[in-house]
Amino acid sequence: MNYPQILKEVQEEINAQQLEGKIATYIPELAKVNPDCFGMHLTCVDGQHFAFGDSKERFSIQSISKVLSMALAMQLEGNNLWKRVDVEPSGTPFNSLIQLENENGIPRNPLINAGAIVVADVLVSHLDHPKEDFLNYVRQLSGHQMIHFDLKVAQSEAETGFRNAALANFLKSYGNLQNDVDTVLDFYFHQCSIAMNCHELVDTFMVFANGGCLLDQSECFFTLSQTKRINAIMQTCGFYDEAGEFTFRVGLPGKSGVGGGIVAVHPQQYAVAVWSPPLNPKGNSAKGMAALELLTTKTGLSIF
Amino acid sequence: MNYPQILKEVQEEINAQQLEGKIATYIPELAKVNPDCFGMHLTCVDGQHFAFGDSKERFSIQSISKVLSMALAMQLEGNNLWKRVDVEPSGTPFNSLIQLENENGIPRNPLINAGAIVVADVLVSHLDHPKEDFLNYVRQLSGHQMIHFDLKVAQSEAETGFRNAALANFLKSYGNLQNDVDTVLDFYFHQCSIAMNCHELVDTFMVFANGGCLLDQSECFFTLSQTKRINAIMQTCGFYDEAGEFTFRVGLPGKSGVGGGIVAVHPQQYAVAVWSPPLNPKGNSAKGMAALELLTTKTGLSIF
Amino acid sequence: MNYPQILKEVQEEINAQQLEGKIATYIPELAKVNPDCFGMHLTCVDGQHFAFGDSKERFSIQSISKVLSMALAMQLEGNNLWKRVDVEPSGTPFNSLIQLENENGIPRNPLINAGAIVVADVLVSHLDHPKEDFLNYVRQLSGHQMIHFDLKVAQSEAETGFRNAALANFLKSYGNLQNDVDTVLDFYFHQCSIAMNCHELVDTFMVFANGGCLLDQSECFFTLSQTKRINAIMQTCGFYDEAGEFTFRVGLPGKSGVGGGIVAVHPQQYAVAVWSPPLNPKGNSAKGMAALELLTTKTGLSIF
Amino acid sequence: MNYPQILKEVQEEINAQQLEGKIATYIPELAKVNPDCFGMHLTCVDGQHFAFGDSKERFSIQSISKVLSMALAMQLEGNNLWKRVDVEPSGTPFNSLIQLENENGIPRNPLINAGAIVVADVLVSHLDHPKEDFLNYVRQLSGHQMIHFDLKVAQSEAETGFRNAALANFLKSYGNLQNDVDTVLDFYFHQCSIAMNCHELVDTFMVFANGGCLLDQSECFFTLSQTKRINAIMQTCGFYDEAGEFTFRVGLPGKSGVGGGIVAVHPQQYAVAVWSPPLNPKGNSAKGMAALELLTTKTGLSIF
Repeated sequence: MNYPQILKEVQEEINAQQLEGKIATYIPELAKVNPDCFGMHLTCVDGQHFAFGDSKERFSIQSISKVLSMALAMQLEGNNLWKRVDVEPSGTPFNSLIQLENENGIPRNPLINAGAIVVADVLVSHLDHPKEDFLNYVRQLSGHQMIHFDLKVAQSEAETGFRNAALANFLKSYGNLQNDVDTVLDFYFHQCSIAMNCHELVDTFMVFANGGCLLDQSECFFTLSQTKRINAIMQTCGFYDEAGEFTFRVGLPGKSGVGGGIVAVHPQQYAVAVWSPPLNPKGNSAKGMAALELLTTKTGLSIF
Repeated sequence: MNYPQILKEVQEEINAQQLEGKIATYIPELAKVNPDCFGMHLTCVDGQHFAFGDSKERFSIQSISKVLSMALAMQLEGNNLWKRVDVEPSGTPFNSLIQLENENGIPRNPLINAGAIVVADVLVSHLDHPKEDFLNYVRQLSGHQMIHFDLKVAQSEAETGFRNAALANFLKSYGNLQNDVDTVLDFYFHQCSIAMNCHELVDTFMVFANGGCLLDQSECFFTLSQTKRINAIMQTCGFYDEAGEFTFRVGLPGKSGVGGGIVAVHPQQYAVAVWSPPLNPKGNSAKGMAALELLTTKTGLSIF
Repeated sequence: MNYPQILKEVQEEINAQQLEGKIATYIPELAKVNPDCFGMHLTCVDGQHFAFGDSKERFSIQSISKVLSMALAMQLEGNNLWKRVDVEPSGTPFNSLIQLENENGIPRNPLINAGAIVVADVLVSHLDHPKEDFLNYVRQLSGHQMIHFDLKVAQSEAETGFRNAALANFLKSYGNLQNDVDTVLDFYFHQCSIAMNCHELVDTFMVFANGGCLLDQSECFFTLSQTKRINAIMQTCGFYDEAGEFTFRVGLPGKSGVGGGIVAVHPQQYAVAVWSPPLNPKGNSAKGMAALELLTTKTGLSIF
Repeated sequence: MNYPQILKEVQEEINAQQLEGKIATYIPELAKVNPDCFGMHLTCVDGQHFAFGDSKERFSIQSISKVLSMALAMQLEGNNLWKRVDVEPSGTPFNSLIQLENENGIPRNPLINAGAIVVADVLVSHLDHPKEDFLNYVRQLSGHQMIHFDLKVAQSEAETGFRNAALANFLKSYGNLQNDVDTVLDFYFHQCSIAMNCHELVDTFMVFANGGCLLDQSECFFTLSQTKRINAIMQTCGFYDEAGEFTFRVGLPGKSGVGGGIVAVHPQQYAVAVWSPPLNPKGNSAKGMAALELLTTKTGLSIF
């Protein structure tokens, strides 16, 4: 596969298109990003890697962090996790409260906000120093010790995150939150504020393309079965109410964030990350969706 | 892969379990089936095939037919099809009208009843002799000329299918049905009444495991891109509000029917069908779900 | 109370306002009405009556007929009626299917379409010649033998009433329709097609202002308790998802129809009808709502 | 009207019935009440009054306070109030978030929790010392200076009121809360904790039966138009998703609270309060509903 040529074409064709989108502004700090940033990074399981554009610029990974917190919670809590959160696609926006009320406080999946807040509660219960421990976990997965929280973003969301506060209180009213609302939200806002660039993001998610192990096989974080299940949840739930569209057009498990990042994996082949801040109406990076569709079209490879 | 041994173990382990389920009775004719029937058939892309139990007994494929009608409609209508039906998982039961009302008569996907009725309308518009032409299409895909409608089942559903009549009229009220309600429903009830056994079902769906072509490569029905998209839709929408659970536990694109059949494909590997009439509360074959989970656990293979 | 002066002021003030509205066009025959028609008629329980404008022009009473069919069904079926239809305001548009699905086929009240179709089913079960018998009942209540069905309107709705066909089939699927869908809908479309003018409408509903009896006390159709309950249902359910607004602004039990008519009663005081075809976004006559609000403001009288 | 005899019969007949109900326990402090308490008080506009049972025992008025806060907000804010809260019946439980999400943060009416929290926000904005000022307002309306907050109840709800915290944060996320969430909730929990007995409750609501004025006409708090509108809202929205049932069976404007109290008014006739803690499944006092139905049946009087 001539990845350098393919990535070059993706960059050129996307830049030639007029893709409309809007930067997320509900977290004021996120609104300050440059809308023209566009970068992509792809690493194959054989270690070769390719990139273009702003692939070394860090951005707020936001909801992409939900995959990492879910993965850790699966390890710490085992199958009990699935008593508190389901694995079904939601069919509703990421911050909806409706299904929660209709389904007695059990979030549809761990990748919508309600589910991720339950996952955050699980981590707060298990970890001695939740924020530090989680950050270290991400650093180990990625191999990058310089990954950190963006405290301005965390603070910005804490001041304006009324919707998430509503979700957390709602979960608490159903008995599906064991710790204090404020403690859980503080952890959640920090988790979402992690800043990475495309390269770091690929390095972090490589483990899901590589059967649960680091590329150098020095360590396995997840069993094959856990890895498959994490990928399966990304496939059906990774893009809110656009999960079907992404599966249909791109055909890879992946996860998006309102910071404009998307990461996807092709098991046993590669991991890829793309970043462009303007979002389509469903809250996913407009250029990112298009770039990944072009990638799987040009490579002729998808999991299907 | 030692498929004969694996299938033997699947059969024994499932038979040793006490899996509860209820036969579908809302179509009276379906209630007459023997609940103890249990069969499975698997064919690899190299042509080897394996089976056990009642794999040669025909049953009503019901909703499994929706994949075939959708595949034909994609060929006849092209991308215009997606203006009339979406590709998102529904998060609701197969016969729900709620989302249809909230989303102006555009069904969530072609594999819930509402979407399949729109697809039926598309076929009625395109085909000269809709029922005969569709049956011939299925026969060509499968290579079995003896596949036929079960007219008693079609008649039974026509007499009691008030919910589907509600859906069809509802779609018509939104302008998303071009032909007469009765004509479309007659086609739809016939389509769902097709009887196949596990072997025939596998032969019919083999094309989706084989990149769109018959195993002997004598004919390609679908492009690689079409094949991927059909598989993608099966993955996210094939099991109603249990699509996430099936993806999580089994990890293959597939489709179930209330007759108790499930078919699944592993692209470039195999197609597999299982049949056991008792359904779990979400309307999918209880033993079928468990058998396919065992299969992908024992083979260690899933698309993720 | 100087009703002649008050009605004169109502007419002038409403005519001076620019009230926007749209004529109902979903029943093609209704779209032919003159949008400028505007009339009002009020009769006191002492027999005095007052009118202006097009009060002698007949129009399609449409949903106003639901009060009359409900009243007859209460007499024929007694309290068993409330096992099949509830008495709660719906909070949703008149033709919604959503609550029906959430509440197992029991319509919220008899004045939304779903509830009125159940009531129609009750009447079809009880009456030997449903359409003729119901028409005669309305003639007796009103004292006008020339009241009739508008067969063009009934025919027009039968040809386009897919939403009502959806509702009827949906009810049937829940076992809440005992007769054939087509028979019930034929009755329902005729019932809604009854044509009356404001004067006739007032004469028909006078019985609800007069404790259940004709003004000359020659006959009592309803007990005091039945009368109160009919008025109570009109109060909470007579204006779809604008019932609260009408109660808040006008403060009388009443019922609207998409033909642009509204009838209201002040128990022990008067009955009043107003007609103007253009509807507000909630489907109620824009001028009619405003005229009745002016009436109760100017008289200083409401039931509250 | 022989009220002494009628109330005696109501007491005896209700005591002879076996009405099932459950005491509200979601506010722990409320769970301590004696379930056998049962009292009633009725005062006519001519000043005569009648009572039985535990009519002098104070209880937590809870949601009944929403009528009083709404009344004060109408005076302070005028018609602008209706831009932030609607006047439609909700058709959903008192603490539902669903409609709020479907309707962009505008609560259906001021008598469900979401609407009452918006009203609380209005009062917090207008009043210098919100809690003290509101308490004084209630004391003036009632003529009882000894009415006070039950601080244990307020504290108990503050510790467990996660659902209301969810609602308040949700409203804030839609921009429909101007003050701090905690400040508004503190006011709201105090407002709901007001303790009154049936006699005091009747004295407080008498103003709505008397055209807005105190019985001795020494002061008028509301215009006739305001009074009508307050009564109208009680009629359509005073009993959550049982508003239609109460209107149908009792036929008076009224308001219930989870403490087991119900107050109702017959304009120009009387105000009445009843108290019995066990609630029916919709959250309204089981004996209270039955007692008021008996009262209007025996008096033959309702507003309809």
